[in-house]
Amino acid sequence: MTTQEIANKLVALCKEGKYEEAYGLYAEDAVHVEMPGMPGDQVTHGLNNIIEGYKNWANSITEVHSGSVGAPVIMGDHFCVPMSSDATFEGTGRWDMKELCVYQVKDGKIAKASFFYDLPGA
Amino acid sequence: MTTQEIANKLVALCKEGKYEEAYGLYAEDAVHVEMPGMPGDQVTHGLNNIIEGYKNWANSITEVHSGSVGAPVIMGDHFCVPMSSDATFEGTGRWDMKELCVYQVKDGKIAKASFFYDLPGA
Repeated sequence: MTTQEIANKLVALCKEGKYEEAYGLYAEDAVHVEMPGMPGDQVTHGLNNIIEGYKNWANSITEVHSGSVGAPVIMGDHFCVPMSSDATFEGTGRWDMKELCVYQVKDGKIAKASFFYDLPGA
Repeated sequence: MTTQEIANKLVALCKEGKYEEAYGLYAEDAVHVEMPGMPGDQVTHGLNNIIEGYKNWANSITEVHSGSVGAPVIMGDHFCVPMSSDATFEGTGRWDMKELCVYQVKDGKIAKASFFYDLPGA
């Protein structure tokens, strides 16, 4: 798949809430980079660890208030997707996250995803 | 200025080629993050060092073939601008760079810029 095709597929799956299926677009050795200052590891290596991190995140949500997935912007082997997620988390409370997700594609798979957002309470 | 206003101003100045004026939107302690694998420092701290790096980059260009600055995508305190620059550099040759630039705004100034692109020859 081209970068455009992967971007379109990722956005379509995220819009349908099919996040676990979206990880099928990732390489086995993919890397996730979170914002400095967030609890936990800033960098996660490997698809299995990424999926585990996603499940922990999803399981800590007690209520989803709203969310959005915008149109992807493609440049070369990278694309950017604006996303938002207003949710309440167990223990830490409500977080209305507005996020830019930047994905790097290599050999037809997502190799790296870097996330940019305001820290909760910032 | 809001994140939207800074994004619009940055894009307008870059479209006019007024890059040095665009650095007026930066905080004095701003940070630039380049791609891993690029020659030189991956992270540059401080506006003076960022401007010096820009001048070195601009001075090494022998011919600009084309370039583009796209519409900004804003989410919270971050925005992303797609840019391209097809230019020939002294010594290293022609590089048709397609880039996503992600900016973080704090206190009405650009605090951090992270650049995503394919490495030359990749």
